[in-house]
Amino acid sequence: MARGFVIPIGGAEEKFRDPAILKRFVDLCGGRAARIAIIPTASRLVSTGPRYRRIFEGLGVATAAVVPFFDREDCTQERWLAELRLATGVFLTGGNQLRLSTTLGGTPAIRLLRHRNHDDGLHIAGTSAGAAILSEHMIAYGDEGGTPHAAMVTLAPGLGFTERAIIDQHFRQRDRLGRLLTALAYNPSKIGIGLDEDTAAFIDADEMLTVRGSGAITVVDPTEVSYTSMDSANPNDPVSVLGVRLHVLAAGGRFDLRGLKAFPPERG
Amino acid sequence: MARGFVIPIGGAEEKFRDPAILKRFVDLCGGRAARIAIIPTASRLVSTGPRYRRIFEGLGVATAAVVPFFDREDCTQERWLAELRLATGVFLTGGNQLRLSTTLGGTPAIRLLRHRNHDDGLHIAGTSAGAAILSEHMIAYGDEGGTPHAAMVTLAPGLGFTERAIIDQHFRQRDRLGRLLTALAYNPSKIGIGLDEDTAAFIDADEMLTVRGSGAITVVDPTEVSYTSMDSANPNDPVSVLGVRLHVLAAGGRFDLRGLKAFPPERG
Repeated sequence: MARGFVIPIGGAEEKFRDPAILKRFVDLCGGRAARIAIIPTASRLVSTGPRYRRIFEGLGVATAAVVPFFDREDCTQERWLAELRLATGVFLTGGNQLRLSTTLGGTPAIRLLRHRNHDDGLHIAGTSAGAAILSEHMIAYGDEGGTPHAAMVTLAPGLGFTERAIIDQHFRQRDRLGRLLTALAYNPSKIGIGLDEDTAAFIDADEMLTVRGSGAITVVDPTEVSYTSMDSANPNDPVSVLGVRLHVLAAGGRFDLRGLKAFPPERG
Repeated sequence: MARGFVIPIGGAEEKFRDPAILKRFVDLCGGRAARIAIIPTASRLVSTGPRYRRIFEGLGVATAAVVPFFDREDCTQERWLAELRLATGVFLTGGNQLRLSTTLGGTPAIRLLRHRNHDDGLHIAGTSAGAAILSEHMIAYGDEGGTPHAAMVTLAPGLGFTERAIIDQHFRQRDRLGRLLTALAYNPSKIGIGLDEDTAAFIDADEMLTVRGSGAITVVDPTEVSYTSMDSANPNDPVSVLGVRLHVLAAGGRFDLRGLKAFPPERG
């Protein structure tokens, strides 16, 4: 079976009036037959899981269940793993991405999710912290501002649903180009995906990314960078990065993460 | 063909009197038929490459060639890629691992090396910075000391020859357990390999690690960690990490990176 979609969302997605992103996610997962598992681990608010459960129920899914992974022991328990085996889609809420990595990292739950996404067509969506965690290399935290500085970003291993990209979120709203460029300058081998709020990247099994939602996605491609001073810059020095390619894509725009080509929306 | 060995060395390996590590590497690569390509990118000293060339020639290899990857453009040039296609072993010198990642990351040279290691039996060894860079998640720099603190380590993408481990070097000599624990606490899904000087991990195609050299390897296995405070610790706070398993292995000791089991030296 083809790999399921990987769907990072930039945070603050519209939930009620015109929930285009959540609706598209539900449609992919089977619409009225969809079984959504909600993982609220990133959040410290007990209301986060139930809130999303009501939202997904309002979108007409068959079932929406909160899977309460709050400590590492929870992520080994058969009753919750069974829930993940039944799901057609998994949704990771926002909060703190280090809550997700420290709780889920290396557990049976995440091995099951990676296997089911890769081999069994399970779709994985995450918003804000839930988006950042989807990549193999994750931005744990960092500073605001457009100019890269050597010490402005902290990377950590993420949950590894995509190895091709480093994902950042609340992108325009929190002025995060500098920290994304810094993360890419360490090793110009990954593609940066900067997601505005209420904007999502739907990445299919062929690694084609399609933009949905009301904002834009900034794709930062460093693979043709001819020079960076990252190896010699002092922690608070600005870092030179020469030859970055950048695409800003609004709804319908696409980017091929294998061929590294951007495409405008298809004419309807 | 089986994957080639991946061989991180902890730095300061013995080069003349009893060069056990370099000799074992040469034997694996074909002994008198070995063709060694030396990548001196990490070093700023022009003498580093030629020095290793003379050492490998002294060990009786067929050829030892310095491949001068000093900027990103070098890493696309056919004359140097041809050298990598002929090699039976590649050796990455020490220096600064960010020189390696910023110069080689995402280039045709590194794609070729990963392919030849994975599918074509090419062996890859690296010392010090050349060891750190071998993993997918690399320690770029960090502080000394045994207690983990949230902000004591900077991770960056490495060259990805192993995804299972995070490698640290000069381990006992520079008191690096704290920074390795910190790197692992972000996401307890990787195995930490702390290499003393003049000590190497020979990792075979079955992910079995065998220790060679005069020091020890500290294997840090966080996969049964029950709790860490990494997600809530302030930058200079000590970080709690509960349930780490640790093995110290001297020459002949082995560790199965798949099964996560340590073994004493085989009786001879």
